[in-house]
Amino acid sequence: MNKQFPILAIETTSDLCSVAVQFNENDFIELNYLAKHIHSEKLMSMIAQVVEESKIDISNFSCVAVSIGPGSFTGLRIGLSSAKGIAFGASLPIIPVPTFDALALQVKNFLPPSIEFSILFSASIEDYYFSKYKIDDDHLIKIDEISLISFSKISEKLKKDDLIFGNAKFDELNVKKIYTQARSISNWAYLFGKDLLTFNYDNLEPLYVKQFIGKVKP
Amino acid sequence: MNKQFPILAIETTSDLCSVAVQFNENDFIELNYLAKHIHSEKLMSMIAQVVEESKIDISNFSCVAVSIGPGSFTGLRIGLSSAKGIAFGASLPIIPVPTFDALALQVKNFLPPSIEFSILFSASIEDYYFSKYKIDDDHLIKIDEISLISFSKISEKLKKDDLIFGNAKFDELNVKKIYTQARSISNWAYLFGKDLLTFNYDNLEPLYVKQFIGKVKP
Repeated sequence: MNKQFPILAIETTSDLCSVAVQFNENDFIELNYLAKHIHSEKLMSMIAQVVEESKIDISNFSCVAVSIGPGSFTGLRIGLSSAKGIAFGASLPIIPVPTFDALALQVKNFLPPSIEFSILFSASIEDYYFSKYKIDDDHLIKIDEISLISFSKISEKLKKDDLIFGNAKFDELNVKKIYTQARSISNWAYLFGKDLLTFNYDNLEPLYVKQFIGKVKP
Repeated sequence: MNKQFPILAIETTSDLCSVAVQFNENDFIELNYLAKHIHSEKLMSMIAQVVEESKIDISNFSCVAVSIGPGSFTGLRIGLSSAKGIAFGASLPIIPVPTFDALALQVKNFLPPSIEFSILFSASIEDYYFSKYKIDDDHLIKIDEISLISFSKISEKLKKDDLIFGNAKFDELNVKKIYTQARSISNWAYLFGKDLLTFNYDNLEPLYVKQFIGKVKP
């Protein structure tokens, strides 16, 4: 049996710590906690709360859908480690969900049938995660794959009147501050995640985009 | 002292049962449960969960912000009764929050700086709650106050390409299904609710818009 629900969803790539149980195409429980540096303290108890509230034994879930980035390095590590732990403990597969694509799906639900928008999150002081989408006749299409762009390149990519979502702050741009919610993670997993479902998650890594580069003082 | 936070927020006007504790301008805990007919069973335990998670004694909250409609009659009654009970028990004031205005604020966070949109929810088989807003230079302006319109009037008010949010279903219109979240209720209360704050909430009634009319068979 290839049952698609219930899905346990975990989103920890931004300051919003968000977990959800999705019961079917419509119904869900979701717990959101927005505050700085709470993921390590709150995540597991929040997961326990929504699972308990769902009244479904964790072993009867279909999968764990986890947001794999890009986003906060620490948040990603905590989210993915917890997802792997739960999946291992309850013998469940994992669906790794590309965070920006799930966020684009969340955003689409509010936008007119033809429009372009970008997603822009800070990666470091100098760099930004960037991707661009358009909605065309109510279909979501990715124009620019996720990339890491430097501060100086932003003005080439984005203009003042562009519709931009994220956490990056610029005087010259109007970036709308939003957070990916766990039910968008489970929704993406349900709609597009089937082929990504895996029991071989030991080596599953966050989608960092950015490389860790050790800098040596000259 | 006129402290504005923390706010306990309650939203029960649609199928989404949503409660939140807002700690300050940014930070919050929010618990969302989407399923049919769960409000009476779930609401109080959900409130208890977020208040416990906040680690703040209920008597130290600034107020209870409650969504007063329009929306589901039963949902409204449950939400407002619970809000009054908590407010009475903990000697807190209530801020009654107009649901559609809070939803408009929630929606605005996703939209470009100049656009019009409508809100359309079913009131009965024949009638709909309708209101219209525009965003002009990033400011939210109400164009049409909430009114009850009949099925036959909808085509005069709305066109196929209009941006519409709600739960109403029409083949001829593209209504985006969204739900008001409790953190939008607390956000509205924080931004605009100061003058509505009241300890005299005994006679506070839901914003039904629709009148109850007893029909007598001819």
